[in-house]
Amino acid sequence: MSGIESANARPRAATLRDVATLAGVSVATASKALNGRANVHPDTRRRVTEAAERISFTPNTLAQAILAGQTGTVGLLTNDLEGRFSLPILMGAEDAFGAGKMSVFLCDARDDAIREQHHIRALLGRRVDGLIVVGSNTDPRATLGLDLPVPTVYAYAPSTDEQDCSVVPDNVHAGTLAIEHLVATGKRRIGHISGDVRYAAARDRATGALAALEAAGLELAGDRVRFGDWTEAWGRAATHSLLDQVSDLDAILCGSDLIARGTLDVLRDRGIDVPARVSVMGFDNWEILTSGARPPLTSIDMNFETLGRRAAQRVFDALDGKSTVGVELMPCRLVVRGSTAQGA
Amino acid sequence: MSGIESANARPRAATLRDVATLAGVSVATASKALNGRANVHPDTRRRVTEAAERISFTPNTLAQAILAGQTGTVGLLTNDLEGRFSLPILMGAEDAFGAGKMSVFLCDARDDAIREQHHIRALLGRRVDGLIVVGSNTDPRATLGLDLPVPTVYAYAPSTDEQDCSVVPDNVHAGTLAIEHLVATGKRRIGHISGDVRYAAARDRATGALAALEAAGLELAGDRVRFGDWTEAWGRAATHSLLDQVSDLDAILCGSDLIARGTLDVLRDRGIDVPARVSVMGFDNWEILTSGARPPLTSIDMNFETLGRRAAQRVFDALDGKSTVGVELMPCRLVVRGSTAQGA
Repeated sequence: MSGIESANARPRAATLRDVATLAGVSVATASKALNGRANVHPDTRRRVTEAAERISFTPNTLAQAILAGQTGTVGLLTNDLEGRFSLPILMGAEDAFGAGKMSVFLCDARDDAIREQHHIRALLGRRVDGLIVVGSNTDPRATLGLDLPVPTVYAYAPSTDEQDCSVVPDNVHAGTLAIEHLVATGKRRIGHISGDVRYAAARDRATGALAALEAAGLELAGDRVRFGDWTEAWGRAATHSLLDQVSDLDAILCGSDLIARGTLDVLRDRGIDVPARVSVMGFDNWEILTSGARPPLTSIDMNFETLGRRAAQRVFDALDGKSTVGVELMPCRLVVRGSTAQGA
Repeated sequence: MSGIESANARPRAATLRDVATLAGVSVATASKALNGRANVHPDTRRRVTEAAERISFTPNTLAQAILAGQTGTVGLLTNDLEGRFSLPILMGAEDAFGAGKMSVFLCDARDDAIREQHHIRALLGRRVDGLIVVGSNTDPRATLGLDLPVPTVYAYAPSTDEQDCSVVPDNVHAGTLAIEHLVATGKRRIGHISGDVRYAAARDRATGALAALEAAGLELAGDRVRFGDWTEAWGRAATHSLLDQVSDLDAILCGSDLIARGTLDVLRDRGIDVPARVSVMGFDNWEILTSGARPPLTSIDMNFETLGRRAAQRVFDALDGKSTVGVELMPCRLVVRGSTAQGA
């Protein structure tokens, strides 16, 4: 495995890359052929199987190498200008096999296809073992294609190609989790303010929230989800409008922590006690916004480290000949603070 | 230069690394020897000079290679868990020679010396041309040592070793710039609330602020700088105390945008108009905190992209035999918004 540092002088075991080279196909194709997956021509599959037999390839050699104290390297291609998701995802990926077993190199493409190609060339030129591609939001993003020489996993934003492997937060589940918490704390008249409706995250969270309200036999307060912008200013404007419309409102679910900060400010300005009269919660669990709020803000954590860990595992599974296709949804996590729980 | 992709088949020019290899010394030593800097034994200097002559080494070949459309690679070792400084620094470094001329690989050491060593090995194993080390705050950090095989530049936090090259924001200048702005807008009774006094950033900003007050013939309102924590809660507590002590206060300089958010909230709670009666400003110009504030927050931008650009230039200067030692201070930048300027 060219990307694995040799820890000792023993002859190294055959790898999937060796099989691919011998069979004259990409690593992705070799992986698919050995796993019996679709889209592999029977002749190709035969050629790969013969190559694997010829060099005594046994899957899982990379996992074994990592367990034996050697080091893997993964390139993380991000489009996240603030690093808010990509650094926790990077940390999770690095720790997937224990501390010090893997290095992750992050490159920032800034949503620019030319930069992205440039970084991919640089990373592949440095012989990384695989790629993790992190989107700038949870909307599906264009695939890099299936002919890359190393396994590629899409994290946070799924690939548009179902033949790729994607690992994304389950925003529908996140919405459900939020409403279930509000209902469990005795709230019944719950409104929902969210961000830009063109974002999958806004729509998915609302879908999960509405489903959970229905399951609880409740209706959304304020008739409709108030979609707008991902800003405090929108949180303030929409909160005024919601309070003016619904006199007995007892909870506001906000589509992000930033929106929730605007909501908390308006409730305070209007002298409405949080959480006794109206509970507030957000999504993202962004420490800088949640911990200093008055009161501290309950939120749904997207579990970015878990997402990164799973993405790294998927890269190494593919290197070991066990590739996965399709979108895997990862569960989110409720973090309770004072804005929904008295004394929390 | 092993880290530079060959763009064509012409024989490549000799590089500093070739000189170092031939002379049997590190690139850093070869660079110092050719620049006539201290700490190089005369024998070593002679050996390096002879090697350079033998292979017709002319400095600046790397800059020429980059201009000719080839690509450099720099490893960026960070300890910034949120990516708030390291991603803008990364972007500046990447753009130092124009878009697409350089790739920066970021590794996160999380303030852990073992992880740091692990990442350095991984980056050097991937033949990066140089290293940029980004601290988690502006306090001096331990040097990685001078015997690394590639040039290393410390950004944001300076190295403790004066023989290293460091590029850091000028926080003293930042403090001066802030007070000069408040004075220019007619404020005279200015208090200063800041973060943890154990941080150089807190002390340096206060030093610059006090010097500017003195230069304007003013005294600090409230007798002393109120050092505390880098939190909104501290901003709120210290603002109450300052307002109670100084009845004619007309401006509060806060040591960070987060502290300033707490200050703005208390002024609003107490019905004090911003900026007409009391102006407020912060440091860091962190968009997520400044743009949604009521009113939007004036702040001092640390110019992270400029910092990154300069750090990358220093790496390449060193590769071209023109290394720099010591700490270079980079100027900061005032960004005026509504919290200090009516109608802004």
